[in-house]
Amino acid sequence: MTVTETDLLRQIFQAAIAAVDPLQILKDHLPTPPKGRTIVLGAGKAAAAMAKAVEDHWPGEIDDGLVVTRYDHGLPCKRIEVVEAAHPVPDAKGQAAALRILEKVQGLTAEDLVLCLISGGGSAIMTIPGDGLTLADKQAVNKALLKSGANISEMNCVRKHLSAIKGGRLAAAAYPAKVVTLLISDVPGDDPSVIASGPTVADPTTRADALAVLEKYRIDAPAAVLKRLRDPACETPKPGDPKLARSETRMLGTPQKALEAAAATAKAAGYTPLILGDLEGEARDVALVHAGIARQVAKHGQPGQAPLALISGGETTVTVRGKGRGGRNAEFLLALAVALDGQPGIYAAAGDTDGIDGTEDNAGAVLTPDSMARATLKGLSAKAMLADNDGYGFFSALGDLIVTGPTRTNINDIRVILINKAVS
Amino acid sequence: MTVTETDLLRQIFQAAIAAVDPLQILKDHLPTPPKGRTIVLGAGKAAAAMAKAVEDHWPGEIDDGLVVTRYDHGLPCKRIEVVEAAHPVPDAKGQAAALRILEKVQGLTAEDLVLCLISGGGSAIMTIPGDGLTLADKQAVNKALLKSGANISEMNCVRKHLSAIKGGRLAAAAYPAKVVTLLISDVPGDDPSVIASGPTVADPTTRADALAVLEKYRIDAPAAVLKRLRDPACETPKPGDPKLARSETRMLGTPQKALEAAAATAKAAGYTPLILGDLEGEARDVALVHAGIARQVAKHGQPGQAPLALISGGETTVTVRGKGRGGRNAEFLLALAVALDGQPGIYAAAGDTDGIDGTEDNAGAVLTPDSMARATLKGLSAKAMLADNDGYGFFSALGDLIVTGPTRTNINDIRVILINKAVS
Repeated sequence: MTVTETDLLRQIFQAAIAAVDPLQILKDHLPTPPKGRTIVLGAGKAAAAMAKAVEDHWPGEIDDGLVVTRYDHGLPCKRIEVVEAAHPVPDAKGQAAALRILEKVQGLTAEDLVLCLISGGGSAIMTIPGDGLTLADKQAVNKALLKSGANISEMNCVRKHLSAIKGGRLAAAAYPAKVVTLLISDVPGDDPSVIASGPTVADPTTRADALAVLEKYRIDAPAAVLKRLRDPACETPKPGDPKLARSETRMLGTPQKALEAAAATAKAAGYTPLILGDLEGEARDVALVHAGIARQVAKHGQPGQAPLALISGGETTVTVRGKGRGGRNAEFLLALAVALDGQPGIYAAAGDTDGIDGTEDNAGAVLTPDSMARATLKGLSAKAMLADNDGYGFFSALGDLIVTGPTRTNINDIRVILINKAVS
Repeated sequence: MTVTETDLLRQIFQAAIAAVDPLQILKDHLPTPPKGRTIVLGAGKAAAAMAKAVEDHWPGEIDDGLVVTRYDHGLPCKRIEVVEAAHPVPDAKGQAAALRILEKVQGLTAEDLVLCLISGGGSAIMTIPGDGLTLADKQAVNKALLKSGANISEMNCVRKHLSAIKGGRLAAAAYPAKVVTLLISDVPGDDPSVIASGPTVADPTTRADALAVLEKYRIDAPAAVLKRLRDPACETPKPGDPKLARSETRMLGTPQKALEAAAATAKAAGYTPLILGDLEGEARDVALVHAGIARQVAKHGQPGQAPLALISGGETTVTVRGKGRGGRNAEFLLALAVALDGQPGIYAAAGDTDGIDGTEDNAGAVLTPDSMARATLKGLSAKAMLADNDGYGFFSALGDLIVTGPTRTNINDIRVILINKAVS
């Protein structure tokens, strides 16, 4: 039986997710059990799957455990409590769980181990406003930062100094226990201090830096925020802090691992894989660039000869102007459809590895050379639907969505374009 | 003496232009002189250089000649008259020259040769409204088409049917003379019927197609336009038309030739060239994608190992929101500067091969790893200047513009990013 291109694309997407699925990879990264107690804590979209994997493979006792994940991302666990909370805007449930997590690391000894399970989304899901702050104060600053043009490092610098658990504070609170943090990265560069704002990782930034960011972007911060940042007590643990000397991190899953798994699956099917890396930019413009490269492969055999698989990751953005439905992957694919306009031999898939493209029930979709023709037969205008940001509507009508449900992991998006040899 | 990266980038840009410079390449594409008269006609940004190259290398007599090019793109010729006219909005000078070009092909015999020199920009520079139309009618439809979302094929279909010289009409008027058209392509795919709207090339589209385009995009066309399109007399010469049987085209320069010349120069300097092809999209988003690929090369040796040169062509767009100066290449480079944020070992250049980036006096600019630091020392904010679309201002202040003056050729843009091995 031959595998069709659309089957292969779905296999490649699944292979990318499998390569960073805690249930499959976590077991190889576990530390040795301690003499004392083992406490399992964690937060993020992958937290429940990471907790389940620990329960399945931990050779010792689990004395206590609590992880917090996004709504609908839970999994039944036996020893570790799994709480679901809101993402991306924090809610009271996530805050209550975060407080309980902090409580659980009190009074530990040097013979105890805290196994900390951190993945993307953990920053919003596990929130505790620092002393003197309300959730509303943090939200006000967050919104202003998001609008300001500050980069992720600058935003994280401020966030860490306004939090009671981020920027290494969780690990400091667990001292003198040993802390081993297992990480799944959803950020370019995979810096452990950036993923979920690094609750167990020393923070190289200072409150002076945080104030400078507010100044630089002229953020009109609530008085309570400014008061806190002027108080030396808000300072995060710094590199070299003795309370973090017993904290270490282990990277389980990264965007690069998923890209390489996608590449291996494409290669096994006879396609030369070409990994472009983690990409950013407006989804429809990123699609135009991918279309250009795909055409160059098809026409000139550059940057490589067909059959070839272009593979990229990262997180595009969508400037919403229309009223349609769909996440950034559906938008990317619809723009790609318009740009390639049915060019023979080119197939593509794009999806969010967390299983949720935007706020819809699909992870992504598949594009085939006849997508445009099939849409026309249904009376759909790809251009008009792209103008309306209706990628979900387009691929849903064609029956070409990729639906996985929450995958309980997340390393951002995967895009794959298969370019076949021209039929002569 | 070692060549610095910035010197190399300027050499690569110059090599790309040289590969499509009529003064260097035209001589190899000349037909044999006819028994009868030789008439040299033409239009486009490269028209003067092409005329000069013909004069330098034509082994026979030149009996008459007239080419029309953009203002400031002329070159002194002896036998061929060179007229300058407006681009991209046509003016009366271009129209007068176009009429004279049509006159010069009247009354020729089968022993005569029309050497037609066509390059990008020719469509605007050489304009004659069809019977019953004014320049204002054509401009009204053009503006509406540009806003409508119609693609270039659809727009050209309409334009050809409203013109008295495009879509093969010039060649038909020259019949029974032989017509040899030498082309420099600035369009993806290099279709001779698209370059300058193909004045000497059979038009596969019909006036019914043109009316369908107006219908499809609900273009509110002037009454004279509709009247013309409903008149069978407006039909362009079609493939198989006997009046075009003696017309042939020869492709001198293409974007691909320039990309490959850039690649060869990079390779000679020790960089593995990776040609991404002709790219479109918003300049700053295209820059983000290039930055992502460059980082992937630097960090993971994918899609190729450093030292590597990423090379792309095509034409990006800029949605102007600020009040700064600069064309799409300066915008691309400034966005790249912000995205790479001084990453060591990465150098880049981008420029318009016609020598004019937007409406400024530069062709492009060069980005070095210390551009951001040098800008900071001068009190410049790259982010703020990007928000103001002030790429020219940024690179001008750093002294890093590429200034060539009009190159008298045009295959759109060239972008080159050099990624060196990380210094360990």
